Amino acid sequence: MGDLIKVIETTEQMQQAADRIRQDGKRIAFVPTMGFLHAGHLSLMRIGRQAADVLVASIFVNPAQFGPNEDFETYPRDYDRDLDLCRSQKVDIVFAPDRENLYGRAYQTYVRLDRLPDHLCGLSRPVFFTGVATVVAKLFHIVKPHVAVFGQKDFQQLLVIRQMVRDLNFDTEIIAGPTVREADGLAMSSRNNYLTEDQRPAALSLYDALNVARKMVAGGITDASRIRARAEAAITKYPEAEIDYLSLCDPETLNDIDHITGPVLMALAVKVAGTRLIDNMVLQPGHE
Amino acid sequence: MGDLIKVIETTEQMQQAADRIRQDGKRIAFVPTMGFLHAGHLSLMRIGRQAADVLVASIFVNPAQFGPNEDFETYPRDYDRDLDLCRSQKVDIVFAPDRENLYGRAYQTYVRLDRLPDHLCGLSRPVFFTGVATVVAKLFHIVKPHVAVFGQKDFQQLLVIRQMVRDLNFDTEIIAGPTVREADGLAMSSRNNYLTEDQRPAALSLYDALNVARKMVAGGITDASRIRARAEAAITKYPEAEIDYLSLCDPETLNDIDHITGPVLMALAVKVAGTRLIDNMVLQPGHE
Repeated sequence: MGDLIKVIETTEQMQQAADRIRQDGKRIAFVPTMGFLHAGHLSLMRIGRQAADVLVASIFVNPAQFGPNEDFETYPRDYDRDLDLCRSQKVDIVFAPDRENLYGRAYQTYVRLDRLPDHLCGLSRPVFFTGVATVVAKLFHIVKPHVAVFGQKDFQQLLVIRQMVRDLNFDTEIIAGPTVREADGLAMSSRNNYLTEDQRPAALSLYDALNVARKMVAGGITDASRIRARAEAAITKYPEAEIDYLSLCDPETLNDIDHITGPVLMALAVKVAGTRLIDNMVLQPGHE
Repeated sequence: MGDLIKVIETTEQMQQAADRIRQDGKRIAFVPTMGFLHAGHLSLMRIGRQAADVLVASIFVNPAQFGPNEDFETYPRDYDRDLDLCRSQKVDIVFAPDRENLYGRAYQTYVRLDRLPDHLCGLSRPVFFTGVATVVAKLFHIVKPHVAVFGQKDFQQLLVIRQMVRDLNFDTEIIAGPTVREADGLAMSSRNNYLTEDQRPAALSLYDALNVARKMVAGGITDASRIRARAEAAITKYPEAEIDYLSLCDPETLNDIDHITGPVLMALAVKVAGTRLIDNMVLQPGHE
């Protein structure tokens, strides 16, 4: 396809386009986004670009994954800039449905997971992973991808999507894209846009805490509570930083780990002056 | 394809077969069943046979739609006879997975509807429609049908599937097949196999009750409670018949209707000596 990016706004047109691509024997890669694209999204697009013949990105701020007191209305949006960025990554099709097109009047069907959401972000955002699983199921039925790319920055989301794909027998391969960081180490996020310069050091404390923990685990410390205490201290020294959770857990089940004998996920969520930031790293004993 | 029926037992092989059929530009019709086939299933297969190029039937007794005190273990099974019956309807592919193939060890993903299950069968079978919606979503991802055929005898199930397809943007057309009855009027069901000759008159009372109501609505009676009372009397005269529900309701939302001004669904479930039977009819004012 190439330079002429195609924008599709209805479900029916996207399904017909996907059918045509598949009938031509071509493979579809898909990067779902909520727009306000940053370097993290673009890295997922580059992975998708390599993985298939036709690259589809979606831009849709999904109301179903926001709780009543969350930032659905104020979530940053810049559609024209997003389109330009998609063009820069040679996206073939941008799927940009409107809300009524995806959630009609009598809407009532949700994809729910029993266990993975009962950890980390799921505890403070009870509707989040149902909203994510539901919209990804919908988008997969519309875009019909052979492969889809999700960022490791949203580690729990990646696990939820992989579990849903396996459990519901979706015929789509899930590829994980590494977390992209700004020069100072802050994980890329559309919500970084909410931060002022003053709040930057507190925002960077998530990355500081991860590095403190990484070094301790690499250095042979196996007591998770000791690591957690040191990591928390790296954050709480900033009065504007409020820890939502800071967890050392199994990278597959997300169950807490007390004694570290193998790879361990450290995942954390911190509110910095009201902006909720998340970050994570898989820590390896004996590896810097 | 034709006389040589193909049996597929794994998800991966069925998905590959579906991809090949679709790449050839052919359309797939799908009839999901729990086996122990009867004339009702065969009529759905004839509808499917007409609707597409390749006809796929599945045989799978879905554990997720049975409650803990229901008849999953004793549900009748006769695989060889089922295969012969599929052959008789020129089914091209029988998909017959085993339980481990569809519900693995850490299984945890379910498709749930918010409102339609809170009526009729959903009240006494709380997991039933989640189990049905989940397995149909799974089977649709495996068989990749253009059209799928469901019987009107399971009217609420048909509504649930249609709602799920619409809400989750499945690109599959749902066709309803009319209820097939035995010569005496009993709606075809695999569970009819549980009935003894002695229990037959009580089993037929469901059809009697529907006909009583049909005539009253056709005759201009609009008071649902009067109709319900007469219909119930047609059943309760058999001491071995125990009504689970008998409802006059909106054929789209399943909300109760008190005053009949248009088409009304009469749906009922009755236990006859322990065997749970269901039946329904859409009644039309002014039409016999």
